[in-house]
Amino acid sequence: MAGKPLRSWVPAANADDCDFPIQNLPYGVFSTRGGAPRCGVAIGDMIVDMAACEARGLVDAGGTFAQPQLNEFIALGRGKWDEVRARLTALLAEGGDESLPLVPMAAARMHLPIRVTEFTDFYASKNHAFNVGVLFRGPENALPPQWTHMPIGYNGRASSVVVSGTPIRRPMGQVRGEDGPVWSRCRRLDLELELGAIVGADSRMGERVSVEEAEAMIFGYVLLNDWSARDIQAWEYQPLGPFQSKALGTTIGAWVVTRAALEPFRCQGAERVAPLLPYLREERPGFYDLIVGWTMNGQAMGRTNYNVMYYSSAQQLAHHTVSGCPMRVGDLIGSGTISGPTLGETGALLEMTQGGKNPVVVNGEERTFIEDGDEIGLYAYARGDGYRIGFGPCTGRILPAQE
Amino acid sequence: MAGKPLRSWVPAANADDCDFPIQNLPYGVFSTRGGAPRCGVAIGDMIVDMAACEARGLVDAGGTFAQPQLNEFIALGRGKWDEVRARLTALLAEGGDESLPLVPMAAARMHLPIRVTEFTDFYASKNHAFNVGVLFRGPENALPPQWTHMPIGYNGRASSVVVSGTPIRRPMGQVRGEDGPVWSRCRRLDLELELGAIVGADSRMGERVSVEEAEAMIFGYVLLNDWSARDIQAWEYQPLGPFQSKALGTTIGAWVVTRAALEPFRCQGAERVAPLLPYLREERPGFYDLIVGWTMNGQAMGRTNYNVMYYSSAQQLAHHTVSGCPMRVGDLIGSGTISGPTLGETGALLEMTQGGKNPVVVNGEERTFIEDGDEIGLYAYARGDGYRIGFGPCTGRILPAQE
Repeated sequence: MAGKPLRSWVPAANADDCDFPIQNLPYGVFSTRGGAPRCGVAIGDMIVDMAACEARGLVDAGGTFAQPQLNEFIALGRGKWDEVRARLTALLAEGGDESLPLVPMAAARMHLPIRVTEFTDFYASKNHAFNVGVLFRGPENALPPQWTHMPIGYNGRASSVVVSGTPIRRPMGQVRGEDGPVWSRCRRLDLELELGAIVGADSRMGERVSVEEAEAMIFGYVLLNDWSARDIQAWEYQPLGPFQSKALGTTIGAWVVTRAALEPFRCQGAERVAPLLPYLREERPGFYDLIVGWTMNGQAMGRTNYNVMYYSSAQQLAHHTVSGCPMRVGDLIGSGTISGPTLGETGALLEMTQGGKNPVVVNGEERTFIEDGDEIGLYAYARGDGYRIGFGPCTGRILPAQE
Repeated sequence: MAGKPLRSWVPAANADDCDFPIQNLPYGVFSTRGGAPRCGVAIGDMIVDMAACEARGLVDAGGTFAQPQLNEFIALGRGKWDEVRARLTALLAEGGDESLPLVPMAAARMHLPIRVTEFTDFYASKNHAFNVGVLFRGPENALPPQWTHMPIGYNGRASSVVVSGTPIRRPMGQVRGEDGPVWSRCRRLDLELELGAIVGADSRMGERVSVEEAEAMIFGYVLLNDWSARDIQAWEYQPLGPFQSKALGTTIGAWVVTRAALEPFRCQGAERVAPLLPYLREERPGFYDLIVGWTMNGQAMGRTNYNVMYYSSAQQLAHHTVSGCPMRVGDLIGSGTISGPTLGETGALLEMTQGGKNPVVVNGEERTFIEDGDEIGLYAYARGDGYRIGFGPCTGRILPAQE
């Protein structure tokens, strides 16, 4: 049996319910009053100032930690990711270097951790695809015929990806009326509970990447809320897919949990109902045993496990290159809404309220969709033996529309 | 009546059928043997080395012309665009400065003129939307119900945008088989004849841009070939839109024709069949009287006019921001395939061969779709009095698939 888990000299890191034990070490970008944004690593309730560490010669990343996003560090490649992780583990373990430059999280402002090169969103929970399909197209056409054969995805808008805590404005747009479209504020504003994979290596145009290679290209994962304007979506999305209904904003968590930190939690996903073409088959399971859930104005709402997903991020990334499409460091790959089979396990209000028909009660108030002023929070964590690997918060509050 | 058109001291610029008279002055990025890519302006059969001009103090653009893409120059804003255009016109006119640093086009290699921030593709020719709709969904559902009310678009993949002359590899992918999907090389490879608008100013997240403001944000236009794998598209595109079928490559011309150069050719587009919501109405017509066409292995194929389009780039850009989606300098907005009402006016083989049913003859050989080794060229020009404003070539040759 394994012994006691590794502990850190940073006291808060050793609490059972701390998102950021020494086993995690997620990356983010932070600033303190008057300072420039730079890279950091979360430990307990503190941030390791990686730029200061490098300035002191404690780690070597070619100066990339002084950048205001992680892309330049990530582009150094897997060998460097492993090297820095091993070094930080040694420095932060009990008996390590207690002179390490730490900044209290409470004194830091978090920034978008990556410069999002491009953003792609998938549709990889069978429960979600079926539930939403019923609402948009009826039960007979709910699951598209190719759904069990390929990860269906679409290109989203990278410019509207923002970091946790950024307010999101309710959009205006065209929605279906009795007699053609009407101009309206969105009345069916929704969240989507997702994970986002951060691509950590480039691929070449005209060349496919295998599932195994794709997995090795993934640097880590963030929480991702793909805000969705369902009424705008219903009117606009055929035949070219969602567009403005998904461009009001996509919120990602400030902390990128590395693939290395999640490795002990690797597990199978949903059972396959049809064999996959060889280019999508994976040698070993590509999912993680991760509790994921969301809150509304602080109240717990849907909660499920990432292992309900049908396609892994590695499969999605491999499919993304099948035409020869080049991927780049900083590409963000949304998993798709993570929904389990029951209403309490859904990752979107559209599903939980069955298209707005059955309101839910939140702190004593009825809700079908998100109202102005509501705050949505996402969470995710893997439960280890005596520690947990958490993602930190991913929150956003809705501002009224500008009519 | 207008007098004789302005002439340049660069002799080739004054030929009737030259794409690059002094009235045009399109921007591109070029390099010569051993040199770094830098910004230039086309005149006749020469390129004005704008980096060298700036080094000599002939123009002032804050050093941006020494960059390997136009984004930094474009970001200086409209005042600077106008100032440089006026200055170049004076320098290049008869009696101007014949010591200007020129490089023969024949000695230059052209590069992608902009760093494409994000790429969006629209669907704005009613003829094309109807023709393709019939082939994909039958005549009754051909034109989506929202088509006459909004410019339908989708986010494309910026990483696969390449400059004219770059070979394009035929993709592999999933296509529909008798009994589920099969793994196949694309057998229905097509072109799409489009213009691409280059966004020249940022907009703010959460704020809409009017059609008039949107037009002012456009720096210029390029030719754009949105290569399309029709068999992959048919299987993948519902419900989230085209994805890998459009990610094999998008070719743009090397020369960005400025909005200023096109201004004399402003005209009406297609007749409106339904009133637009106020946010899409334009005070003055937003189209250009531009002959556009394409060739296959040198043979003339489809040819029409950009004025067949139903939505202008300014309307597309305004719609793009309706949800509050922020736009950025370097965003590329594809017009959608430009097709007139008859077969000879279509901008895609899918339409011209009616879904591959009626082959066309190209240099004595039958074609339904594009074969390996075939080269597609696009062209566009506006005809002025004694000159024409051309876009230069936009070509691509198809390489065999990597099976």
